[in-house]
Amino acid sequence: MEKRIHHPYLVSKVMSAEQAATQIRPGMTVAMSGFTGAGYPKAVPLALAVQIEAAHALGEKFALRTLTGASTAPELDGALAKVRGIEFRLPYQSDPELRARINRGEIEYMDMHLGQVAQYTWFGFLGRLDVAIIEVAGILPDGRLIPSTSVGNNKTWLDLADKVIIEVNSVQPAGLDGMHDVYYGTALPPDREPIPLVRPGDRIGEPYLRVDPAKVIAVVETQGPDRLSRFSPPDETSIRIANHLVEFFRHEIAMGRLAQQLLPLQSGVGNIANAVLSGLRDGRFQGLTAFTEVIQDGMLDLIRTGTILTASATALSLSPEGVEEFGRNIEFYRSRIVLRPQEISNHAELVRRLGCIAINGMVEADIYGNVNSTHVAGTSIINGIGGSGDFARNGFLSCFVTPSTAKNGAISCIVPMVSHVDHTEHDVAVVVTEHGLADLRGLSPKQRARVVIDNCAHPDYRPLLHDYFERALRNSPGKHTPHLLGEALSWHERFIETGRMRP
Amino acid sequence: MEKRIHHPYLVSKVMSAEQAATQIRPGMTVAMSGFTGAGYPKAVPLALAVQIEAAHALGEKFALRTLTGASTAPELDGALAKVRGIEFRLPYQSDPELRARINRGEIEYMDMHLGQVAQYTWFGFLGRLDVAIIEVAGILPDGRLIPSTSVGNNKTWLDLADKVIIEVNSVQPAGLDGMHDVYYGTALPPDREPIPLVRPGDRIGEPYLRVDPAKVIAVVETQGPDRLSRFSPPDETSIRIANHLVEFFRHEIAMGRLAQQLLPLQSGVGNIANAVLSGLRDGRFQGLTAFTEVIQDGMLDLIRTGTILTASATALSLSPEGVEEFGRNIEFYRSRIVLRPQEISNHAELVRRLGCIAINGMVEADIYGNVNSTHVAGTSIINGIGGSGDFARNGFLSCFVTPSTAKNGAISCIVPMVSHVDHTEHDVAVVVTEHGLADLRGLSPKQRARVVIDNCAHPDYRPLLHDYFERALRNSPGKHTPHLLGEALSWHERFIETGRMRP
Repeated sequence: MEKRIHHPYLVSKVMSAEQAATQIRPGMTVAMSGFTGAGYPKAVPLALAVQIEAAHALGEKFALRTLTGASTAPELDGALAKVRGIEFRLPYQSDPELRARINRGEIEYMDMHLGQVAQYTWFGFLGRLDVAIIEVAGILPDGRLIPSTSVGNNKTWLDLADKVIIEVNSVQPAGLDGMHDVYYGTALPPDREPIPLVRPGDRIGEPYLRVDPAKVIAVVETQGPDRLSRFSPPDETSIRIANHLVEFFRHEIAMGRLAQQLLPLQSGVGNIANAVLSGLRDGRFQGLTAFTEVIQDGMLDLIRTGTILTASATALSLSPEGVEEFGRNIEFYRSRIVLRPQEISNHAELVRRLGCIAINGMVEADIYGNVNSTHVAGTSIINGIGGSGDFARNGFLSCFVTPSTAKNGAISCIVPMVSHVDHTEHDVAVVVTEHGLADLRGLSPKQRARVVIDNCAHPDYRPLLHDYFERALRNSPGKHTPHLLGEALSWHERFIETGRMRP
Repeated sequence: MEKRIHHPYLVSKVMSAEQAATQIRPGMTVAMSGFTGAGYPKAVPLALAVQIEAAHALGEKFALRTLTGASTAPELDGALAKVRGIEFRLPYQSDPELRARINRGEIEYMDMHLGQVAQYTWFGFLGRLDVAIIEVAGILPDGRLIPSTSVGNNKTWLDLADKVIIEVNSVQPAGLDGMHDVYYGTALPPDREPIPLVRPGDRIGEPYLRVDPAKVIAVVETQGPDRLSRFSPPDETSIRIANHLVEFFRHEIAMGRLAQQLLPLQSGVGNIANAVLSGLRDGRFQGLTAFTEVIQDGMLDLIRTGTILTASATALSLSPEGVEEFGRNIEFYRSRIVLRPQEISNHAELVRRLGCIAINGMVEADIYGNVNSTHVAGTSIINGIGGSGDFARNGFLSCFVTPSTAKNGAISCIVPMVSHVDHTEHDVAVVVTEHGLADLRGLSPKQRARVVIDNCAHPDYRPLLHDYFERALRNSPGKHTPHLLGEALSWHERFIETGRMRP
């Protein structure tokens, strides 16, 4: 196995994951690497889970406050949640075990905009960081760190944590070296300067993470792959959603509101997002760019085929095939991909300046264009808001996509009133389902209602939505945003009681 | 009367308001100056209202799409609404006649973030502008315009409208000349560059507005004062709210999270905002700055007393006494006040960079920290979101303030679930009522609920809120954000039915 640790003092700190984990004590705040299942520590959290379980067996309390970049994997969130090792967690998560415990009320979870986590930590709003556990791809002779498949909040965690544990994962491609751009120009207000990035591919920082070796209490060698998700080929619904969006972009080009190269794309995670990207390729778009959070297979494919010239993100989250393709042509990709801290990939200043086209999935939208990205029936969290708010609020165009129904039609994803609001009526420009696209720009609430119902709702639910809207128009005390408050959330109530939204 | 129009061609376009108004035809989109009752056109809209009324009397249709900076006055929104002359209006409004008609469903109204109106117009999302009607304080020999008491969206309106009507208001202080800073460096993406502003008082543009004289179809001379609101002296409730906030700032300074000079203040309009500013003066803060939308009497007073060194805004909205004080010491104020386009005063990039402390009023907050800034019982609009979202989302600290009850206690401003969401749980850091302050930073929804109820709710409503929360904790299907959907909006329903929220 090739040597990945080249700094003598840090070589001297190499130890087992079990030894490293003993340094973490109950009640500590532990900040970890990891973003969308990429670049999270593979060994120390597992070892920690074993120690926590042992402590619990002795009747001792042992739970942590954990902060990450975004979602990680069963070896981290899953393992720690299972042994009741997490008392508080932020920001985005997607592990089933962790999610179940949050929704049973066992774990306090705070859902934050991914672009704001770093600055909130710097501001001191999230408390002190006791330990950071960061996966890297290697350590240079001068002690700087080659970042792994995600950068996430690692710069901030390394800068601010009292102590640092480094995991050096030798199965991460050595060719990642040079792909990252870590910006060290941030400051606290009032000393902030403009961030000098004007194109998605601009390099404004350094390829490496800095760490004070004196803070490093352990270096652990690992050889574990990232949580690699397979993507299903796009289904009929996703393809139809993608086609509506591609047609819309063509229309905007025809109207002179978008150039042929569009504007930097931000695309959420998952199968619909992948289908949209495929749709852009099949639509023969060229010369595109991406300024986004995650590069998944769909985007890798667009880079390979030249549809996308440059992509900026904070994480590479690929399938096993994607990892292979990436490894085979890493030189090619390194000149086209920049991985940055999520503070930069999701930064309000840059999203606004670049004019990103934001395409994000959602749980449901209401007839007035409010969007729920996070909750089932208003009370159970799914994954969190992620970066959707960073891009929807500050970008050029904010698009939200979803199939028109869920659970085989038992749930309508277009409802009278969303059960939780993550994106307000002020931040939603376009809603798309497989049935069509609602262009909400420049419309009042009542105008939006008609176009959302007619263009996006499933035909089975359309009459019910029209009926609600027309009765609200007649009987609502105020007719700016007509609602029947006693009925507005009744679809969700009925779903909870009967398993379906329809009467 | 002093001469205010020095450009020969534009002198030749001087005509009466009645003549100017005849150029506006049914169905046109008319973009007007005006922000918080300052700098709106005083004569042409009134003349237009007369002509619209006459057309209606003849059975002709005559209604306009109107865009402004923010709220205007009875002579504009009021007069046009009264004669059914507005079919669509954006963004912020506060005229009682206009509001009543919006809420009766007679006028389509779109509520937007004030910082996004200009770019959305440039993007082409709001359609074409047929005519701009802009109040100015004077016209230079070279045709450039001395802006009036508000800059608002005037730069964008003048750049983009097909035709321009200028009102030159000679009662606006001539001393306004030199106080404005109009930034001409904006561009459309992908050609945007960093905005070179790093301190609230930085001047990055020009003191004058440009207009192509060939587009000017009329110049109208006016002599009308702005809509001058009197402020009541702060009442007991406002003083208590202000004191909680001042105490919180002192605490943050003590904890090292804020410097003595705080960070640039953004403060919404109204009596509570004024009380907070008075609280800062009485709290002997010094060396403060403001990066905000409106300078009202409270802030003028802080500038006068040296508490605030520099204030940046887009409008001066003063009482008659404030106008007098301002006029008396205009040289003093001109070196301390910068008036900018609202695109810049509310710009995501700048609000984030400067790290503004955002203090905004609200209608209600729910126990989980979602805020309603705009709607009564979910359906009737009050004024609109204004710039609160621009600052709450991107600033350093987002504070929302309200008395704990309204209508003599019939309404609780802390509710189980807000009836409309303008600021999500992700964007609300601090909630303040006269009973106390809830610091929501770093808290999960359930943690937030307890502190909001205990610190902010009126004692009469506290047991009811605790009861709701505890029952939701037991019976909610998901326990991340516990809710009883059948009951979540029942307080508002009860208010509609009985005039009070309590059973």
